[in-house]
Amino acid sequence: TMAQHRSAVEGRRLTVFDCRTEASERPDRELSIAGEDLDTFLRAVSREFSIAEGEAFVLATTDRKQINASRFEELKDGSTLYLLHSVDQELHVATKEPIMFLPHYDTLIKSGMYEYYASEGQKSLPYAFAELIDNALSATVKNTGVRNIEIRLLFDDIQGKPAVVILDNGSGMTSKQLNNWAVYRLSKFSRENSDFQSDHTGYIRPLPVPRSLNSDISYFGVGGKQAVFYIGQSARMITRPVGSPDVHELVLSKEEFEKKERNREEIYCGFIRNRKPGDSSHIDSEDERFLHNLIQEEVQKDSFTAVVITGVQPEHIAFLRSDFQVWTRELAHIYHYYIHGAQGNDSASLLRTSDIITKIDIQICLLEKSKTPRMLNLRLVSNDMQTLYINSCVDTFEFRAHVEGDGIVEGLIRYHPFLYDKETYPEDPYSLSNAAEEEDEDCVIFNQEGRGKRPIFQCFWNGRLIPYTTVAEFDWCARPKKSGSVPLECLNRISGVLFTNDHFQVSTNKLTFMDLELQLKDKETIFTRVVNGQEQRVKIQKEFSQWLKECHEKWDKQVKFLGFQGIMARMDV
Amino acid sequence: TMAQHRSAVEGRRLTVFDCRTEASERPDRELSIAGEDLDTFLRAVSREFSIAEGEAFVLATTDRKQINASRFEELKDGSTLYLLHSVDQELHVATKEPIMFLPHYDTLIKSGMYEYYASEGQKSLPYAFAELIDNALSATVKNTGVRNIEIRLLFDDIQGKPAVVILDNGSGMTSKQLNNWAVYRLSKFSRENSDFQSDHTGYIRPLPVPRSLNSDISYFGVGGKQAVFYIGQSARMITRPVGSPDVHELVLSKEEFEKKERNREEIYCGFIRNRKPGDSSHIDSEDERFLHNLIQEEVQKDSFTAVVITGVQPEHIAFLRSDFQVWTRELAHIYHYYIHGAQGNDSASLLRTSDIITKIDIQICLLEKSKTPRMLNLRLVSNDMQTLYINSCVDTFEFRAHVEGDGIVEGLIRYHPFLYDKETYPEDPYSLSNAAEEEDEDCVIFNQEGRGKRPIFQCFWNGRLIPYTTVAEFDWCARPKKSGSVPLECLNRISGVLFTNDHFQVSTNKLTFMDLELQLKDKETIFTRVVNGQEQRVKIQKEFSQWLKECHEKWDKQVKFLGFQGIMARMDV
Ligand SMILES: Nc1ncnc2c1ncn2[C@@H]1O[C@H](COP(=O)(O)OP(=O)(O)OP(=O)(O)O)[C@@H](O)[C@H]1O
Ligand SMILES: Nc1ncnc2c1ncn2[C@@H]1O[C@H](COP(=O)(O)OP(=O)(O)OP(=O)(O)O)[C@@H](O)[C@H]1O
Ligand SMILES: [Mg+2]
Ligand SMILES: [Mg+2]
Repeated sequence: TMAQHRSAVEGRRLTVFDCRTEASERPDRELSIAGEDLDTFLRAVSREFSIAEGEAFVLATTDRKQINASRFEELKDGSTLYLLHSVDQELHVATKEPIMFLPHYDTLIKSGMYEYYASEGQKSLPYAFAELIDNALSATVKNTGVRNIEIRLLFDDIQGKPAVVILDNGSGMTSKQLNNWAVYRLSKFSRENSDFQSDHTGYIRPLPVPRSLNSDISYFGVGGKQAVFYIGQSARMITRPVGSPDVHELVLSKEEFEKKERNREEIYCGFIRNRKPGDSSHIDSEDERFLHNLIQEEVQKDSFTAVVITGVQPEHIAFLRSDFQVWTRELAHIYHYYIHGAQGNDSASLLRTSDIITKIDIQICLLEKSKTPRMLNLRLVSNDMQTLYINSCVDTFEFRAHVEGDGIVEGLIRYHPFLYDKETYPEDPYSLSNAAEEEDEDCVIFNQEGRGKRPIFQCFWNGRLIPYTTVAEFDWCARPKKSGSVPLECLNRISGVLFTNDHFQVSTNKLTFMDLELQLKDKETIFTRVVNGQEQRVKIQKEFSQWLKECHEKWDKQVKFLGFQGIMARMDV
Repeated sequence: TMAQHRSAVEGRRLTVFDCRTEASERPDRELSIAGEDLDTFLRAVSREFSIAEGEAFVLATTDRKQINASRFEELKDGSTLYLLHSVDQELHVATKEPIMFLPHYDTLIKSGMYEYYASEGQKSLPYAFAELIDNALSATVKNTGVRNIEIRLLFDDIQGKPAVVILDNGSGMTSKQLNNWAVYRLSKFSRENSDFQSDHTGYIRPLPVPRSLNSDISYFGVGGKQAVFYIGQSARMITRPVGSPDVHELVLSKEEFEKKERNREEIYCGFIRNRKPGDSSHIDSEDERFLHNLIQEEVQKDSFTAVVITGVQPEHIAFLRSDFQVWTRELAHIYHYYIHGAQGNDSASLLRTSDIITKIDIQICLLEKSKTPRMLNLRLVSNDMQTLYINSCVDTFEFRAHVEGDGIVEGLIRYHPFLYDKETYPEDPYSLSNAAEEEDEDCVIFNQEGRGKRPIFQCFWNGRLIPYTTVAEFDWCARPKKSGSVPLECLNRISGVLFTNDHFQVSTNKLTFMDLELQLKDKETIFTRVVNGQEQRVKIQKEFSQWLKECHEKWDKQVKFLGFQGIMARMDV
């Protein structure tokens, strides 16, 4: 029969359901058409379903549109048709219509668009960069030497059209892994990294480390794609895996997707280019001149990955150039503990560097037309909030929260004393609320209330900041109902940090925790104090009050006259 | 040649690149294998590439894994292999390796998981329901009679496993449209609704209507999928399009996706069942007994859509049962102006109902085991925030904001006077901050500060609330730097609403606006006052101050003794 004749490559296959009668042995049959007109096809249908000469029948789509000559021309390969007595007769027997529902390519190219949206006053571009730095941190975790991450902003048109390049000297990707990179929502939990069953290495959870600085900052299988298409319109991934003689290259671009759709080609098919390092013979566009240099660099490198983003949104270019300090500072904040180690950027401590088992260098480089390049190692940023907190604090209170079901959160609270005539609680120089207050008061007053009503805790997930989630307080460090042994203002002199691992979930854009606060505030959560790295099961509230009282008495230089009792000297901080 | 021989259905096709020499005319050739062992295949390769007897060569994957017998077995159809001198020789010429990168099915089934995350104190389930109500509102926009939307919670196990059903009497979907429903990220802007070019109706923007109540609340092509898979693990869409004799049915489920992956079937292929109304012969699972009744109802209906969600998360069931009042009230708030019309739920106004050109009924029905069903028409909810605002206000100030590039925002400000001994500014009975304050003060004080520091404006997009975005104030209605003709407290007695159309973008989860506030606060934005529906270009700040002053003088019954001048009587409100 025709149905078995599966040949013609240019032909279309149609499934015809005979819906004329209640019972039919084989109601659906496949017919092929290759160039025939409707009449020929109708005759073939008659033959196939043994319709007697002169017997009336109708062919219609499953939407009950009768097939006429022009519709017949337009029928797509794989369509399902009904053979009916009349176009609106009842379906005696249900029909099963095969469908395809491939996600639209906007899934990839618009994925970041509405995810890293600009909340009021918060510029979202740093959070897109963060996704790419996350990936670079993951990729460099096994490096024995320095872990190098570079962001190059190529905005000098001598080099071609504007481009953003994120480079790392990590493990790179095999062509299979590069293929997997492009698969939206394929997470490390469901990924096969090799073509061969025998080589599969399932995901291994990293061992616990202080502050959860485990570099394991991949989770959903979306970050890289969301980030590159938020930043620009095309991504060229160039990578060389450990031990391989080859470089693998993959381009995903909006333009390419649109072209495939226009030409009715398969949307999610593409090519990986495998080539020798340094071979840029395929780069022929003047817009991408800079690629020749970048590819030339490959020959001196072992494994690496470069993410090259072009079609960069003009407003992003403007922001990256004009607000260099703002976004680099935000990145330094996000990765503070990766850059500076578990103790953070503590200028007082000499032990600091030894904490960083392997050094992580995150280097920013901005090239503009006829300007000297701007270079910045994020380690040198000294005004990110964590640095400000660390260097204005005089004492810390460490604790741990054990949440039901193995969740452990490390926490610390810092004390920022009142000195002479002012609070030393640091102010975010870029915060909006601060600006608003200034305006309100018609004169600049810094830190008048210390923390004020702001939340105590900033929160880090696997070592990196989750910027939009804060935790206001816990019962045991909240303002007490009746004033106790410590003046209430002291509670405005504390800042805090929470460190969790991925036991606590974050949203796909890594901007918020899902329910960290809810889980921490569960009745079953147990808080312990940590002293010199040792956990102590104590009454946390009492310990905290005691600590706060000591901080106050030892560090605050706010004088309160209660009745003269004698003279006491305090050292400068 | 073998390469041209494209037969064996069970066979695998492999592409072999000859990478031994610099230049080869046809480096890549396709070979088919069907059951052969490695040796046979190696001989075929030798033949194809004219390799002399005894000449050494290596076959490897593009990841440079040498092909041995066991790896040969595992090679997948479509794999690319290298023909090399030695396994790590350099690639003289680049190779192009075809790849596929279909989005993982988690794109669909986990899409809502991290999108409707529970922000602190805000339960997210109502926002998932809202996506389905959005769709039902869009679908019923052309109804000539009542627009009926029903949410049925079937939690009575006599009927089967727990299920959530969202029903509407809208236009339904053709099988093509139902197919499109399943396509993630296929928005109305890029959709073809018919198989035929000739029938295409592109998206038509609705005409402007007051408060942008245009029912056009679809935008991204993700809402329905995110919502159903946030609520449960399986969705059965049942729909009958206008004028069709058939019902179309499509099931998407987590289980089905997992099965397809296990069996290496195509993930995004499925079936639509087309059948006559009332035909439930395909429902054979005891878990879904309730479907027989639901399907029976079809025979009395014209067009309709039913979204049947099963595998409902237990915590959702618990929340829906225990917090019935909370989530129904939130829904009543989101759709306040759709339910009550452009003037809102104004108990004083008798004209109200005439505003609602077509009545929208949103009906909730909760069935639990051996309990009387709970039924609620959202129109009867009288404690949603908009109802509270509307009924405690004594005067309104209407305005419009013209944003650069055709964006128009309707706005109104309401005055809630001070009466006798208290503010009448309504308090959100469920708000967290309120609860916290109560605790703080150790006694319940309502509205002590009126609005306090809370933002003035709630924001509606195409008529429905965008719950997480508020706008604090505009210059012209902010607290002035120096006190003017009106006591500062009066500014704590105003609430407000902003209505935008989709000229202003929202995030894919419709929880926040992208940049409404930024755009409104642009220097180019022009504010006009609206009086009796007429726009007036006036000095908005002056008009507003004047209005506020009048409100204060006319409505506030807060007495301030300034020096006795005489006696004045005021009517009760
Ligand atoms: N710089 C890199 N070096 C090596 N491998 C990388 C690099 N960037 C991405 N990859 C690989 O590509 C995968 C996909 O990256 P992507 O950021 O899109 O998702 P993810 O990191 O898996 O999850 P998330 O959504 O949490 O970011 C990563 O898991 C990793 O295997
Ligand atoms: N109840 C319904 N009746 C008729 N058609 C519907 C219904 N629900 C969904 N559809 C169709 O399915 C499409 C996809 O719905 P879905 O909610 O997933 O995305 P969307 O509404 O297009 O966009 P958004 O992401 O903004 O919700 C809709 O655009 C509409 O055409
Ligand atoms: Mg990532
Ligand atoms: Mg929708």
